[in-house]
Amino acid sequence: MTASYETIRTRLDGTVLCATFDAPPMNLIGPEVVRDLVALLEELSHPTAPHVVIFDSADVDFFFPHVDMTKVPEYTAEAAKAGGPGDASLGMLFRKLSRLPAVTIAKLRGRARGAGSEFLLACDMRFASREGAVLGQPEVGIGAPPGAGAIQHLTRLMGRGRALEAVLASSDFDADLAERYGWINRAVPDAELDEFVAGIAARVSGFPRDALIAAKSAINAVSLPTPAEVRADAALFQQLVRSGNAQQRTAELFEQGFQTRGATELDLGDALGHLRAAD
Amino acid sequence: MTASYETIRTRLDGTVLCATFDAPPMNLIGPEVVRDLVALLEELSHPTAPHVVIFDSADVDFFFPHVDMTKVPEYTAEAAKAGGPGDASLGMLFRKLSRLPAVTIAKLRGRARGAGSEFLLACDMRFASREGAVLGQPEVGIGAPPGAGAIQHLTRLMGRGRALEAVLASSDFDADLAERYGWINRAVPDAELDEFVAGIAARVSGFPRDALIAAKSAINAVSLPTPAEVRADAALFQQLVRSGNAQQRTAELFEQGFQTRGATELDLGDALGHLRAAD
Amino acid sequence: MTASYETIRTRLDGTVLCATFDAPPMNLIGPEVVRDLVALLEELSHPTAPHVVIFDSADVDFFFPHVDMTKVPEYTAEAAKAGGPGDASLGMLFRKLSRLPAVTIAKLRGRARGAGSEFLLACDMRFASREGAVLGQPEVGIGAPPGAGAIQHLTRLMGRGRALEAVLASSDFDADLAERYGWINRAVPDAELDEFVAGIAARVSGFPRDALIAAKSAINAVSLPTPAEVRADAALFQQLVRSGNAQQRTAELFEQGFQTRGATELDLGDALGHLRAAD
Repeated sequence: MTASYETIRTRLDGTVLCATFDAPPMNLIGPEVVRDLVALLEELSHPTAPHVVIFDSADVDFFFPHVDMTKVPEYTAEAAKAGGPGDASLGMLFRKLSRLPAVTIAKLRGRARGAGSEFLLACDMRFASREGAVLGQPEVGIGAPPGAGAIQHLTRLMGRGRALEAVLASSDFDADLAERYGWINRAVPDAELDEFVAGIAARVSGFPRDALIAAKSAINAVSLPTPAEVRADAALFQQLVRSGNAQQRTAELFEQGFQTRGATELDLGDALGHLRAAD
Repeated sequence: MTASYETIRTRLDGTVLCATFDAPPMNLIGPEVVRDLVALLEELSHPTAPHVVIFDSADVDFFFPHVDMTKVPEYTAEAAKAGGPGDASLGMLFRKLSRLPAVTIAKLRGRARGAGSEFLLACDMRFASREGAVLGQPEVGIGAPPGAGAIQHLTRLMGRGRALEAVLASSDFDADLAERYGWINRAVPDAELDEFVAGIAARVSGFPRDALIAAKSAINAVSLPTPAEVRADAALFQQLVRSGNAQQRTAELFEQGFQTRGATELDLGDALGHLRAAD
Repeated sequence: MTASYETIRTRLDGTVLCATFDAPPMNLIGPEVVRDLVALLEELSHPTAPHVVIFDSADVDFFFPHVDMTKVPEYTAEAAKAGGPGDASLGMLFRKLSRLPAVTIAKLRGRARGAGSEFLLACDMRFASREGAVLGQPEVGIGAPPGAGAIQHLTRLMGRGRALEAVLASSDFDADLAERYGWINRAVPDAELDEFVAGIAARVSGFPRDALIAAKSAINAVSLPTPAEVRADAALFQQLVRSGNAQQRTAELFEQGFQTRGATELDLGDALGHLRAAD
């Protein structure tokens, strides 16, 4: 692994790659992050690539707050470079992530909302700091359905009632509640999280790769959404995010400090509940 | 909302409708309740209807004990009025409930068994009093499989093993166990339940309706049973509930106070375990 | 029930059959156990067979440690006798177990790994000693994907992320973690386990059989993998278990006491993490 990225710091530890998202000031998912993700997934698709990847964040408060709402066309254009025609969406990029031969483990500290949560959902395993992790799908509160996998993954992971709650109420979930609902594999005490994740990664990296790939493919065949499902969700998001409601609510959030390191982003779940009611 | 119902008290709080089942003496699901449900669902299907509905019960001991076993043909005839030809079943009525544009939240105190539990399962979210909620599917203990959605929903929510336990053993579940198994979203301390549910309802009611409807439809597409599955379960229930075993066990339950406010109904799960063994 | 088996002790208690696996020295799943399972399932398929079966183990440390890795062709040949052409696999035998008219309850003390865990997953309900149960799918750590149902069942029971963790990391799960992930119905204190399971069995055995069969069949229709899925997993296991990696790692395990009552088998999850890393 010698490629270098603008927004991802990589470090190889044996056959385990540590990929740390580092896109100041707050790790928004914009064109640069997506461009780097596209390149990293391409690199990880090679037969000689690392067998296991740990994803974490250089920012203790924000793993990925959400997409950069001012650059939806731009990051979508970057995502398109990972797929074929008609696949211009984060959802299809994240589906590619789910199908990598590498085993992907997300280590969550801070906030992962919207497409940030959907990135985690596309990884193979998710472990979160009990004290410091927050997950949320704020899209409906802003004015569009989640478009990059949350509909599909959350419904399969936690069932219809809890998925409807998570998506329709757009509330923040702490790590313990996220574990109870199945959003993450486990909440782990923050002081133990690094060693816990490193242990699983080291263990898996020593196992025969053909068995890992065969087992992962078989589980994917049962559990991944179809491309048609992913594309339909992406199309609906891209349509409604341009609606008057979504535009107006996004504007109201920007007046309150949206996409800056402040109270609105730290407690976005709360902020959504205090926007003016939609018609 | 100006319609009035014999068995449902409705109160509009902003764009949140509170619908309280009040069918003395014990909220049995009989022809009157089903007729009112059919009318309420029709009203909630209109574009100008409330965006969010909270369902609760005026009876602290019985949300819905189960259907009125003396009036299966009568309530089924009422349910038929909600659907097309061949859809004479509570199961298809409840499927219609699941597909409403309104967001439906069930607040459970007391017992919800049989079709009462299946009503809850058809709602979008279910929150239950930790101290005072009981869920159960007593049908198999009586002599028929559940026919109005439990087979489909419980299997998807809790997986094969736990669904088989809930359905085959026909035992009562308290709120904590129901939460662990995924039957409900959460068990909430009784003293906090009203405020908790009102908070979610108020929050969701302020969100853009097109996003709510799009997200709910997409989650439904992944999680709702097909009409064919619902009809098959209804047909099997309607066949076996007329069997000699079911008739005999129902008669034995009536000798013990079935369908009256007493020990047999309060602890129906226990009562089923003490019926004479079937052949 | 008068048939007698070399490796299964049976005892009829009313209409509940207790079937205790007793294949010293450590209950390996070899040709004898499979032959007896084939015969027992045949017997349980008869209309007059017991309505409920409790499966447990005579060995408090090992329910089923895993298959006898020295006799894969032999036990596969025995499994073939349960099915039609092309169904020579434990997976198809276990699928037959899942479709029995009898209600099957597994009571777990000790270790159930590999096909031992998959046997449990094919039963209708699984209750485990909180203090003394261990579950695991060590296959990937050895060099092959699980082949007899774990891929299908674990993904459906616990969702993609947790199934990938259980299968790819090949770690041991204690009963509490297995309950949180949905691998088992419940962890029960060891001192209460016998009475708890006997209570459910006695209760269910008194319920009308037509209702039990109808409800189980309907739940199976939603939750069981298709024969094609089961056959594909079996084929992949049978292919990779003969690979160089699997052969080498199995040999290394045998040098450490694999398939004998010692530290390697007691803590097989740990042992897998200390094998030489595969290429």
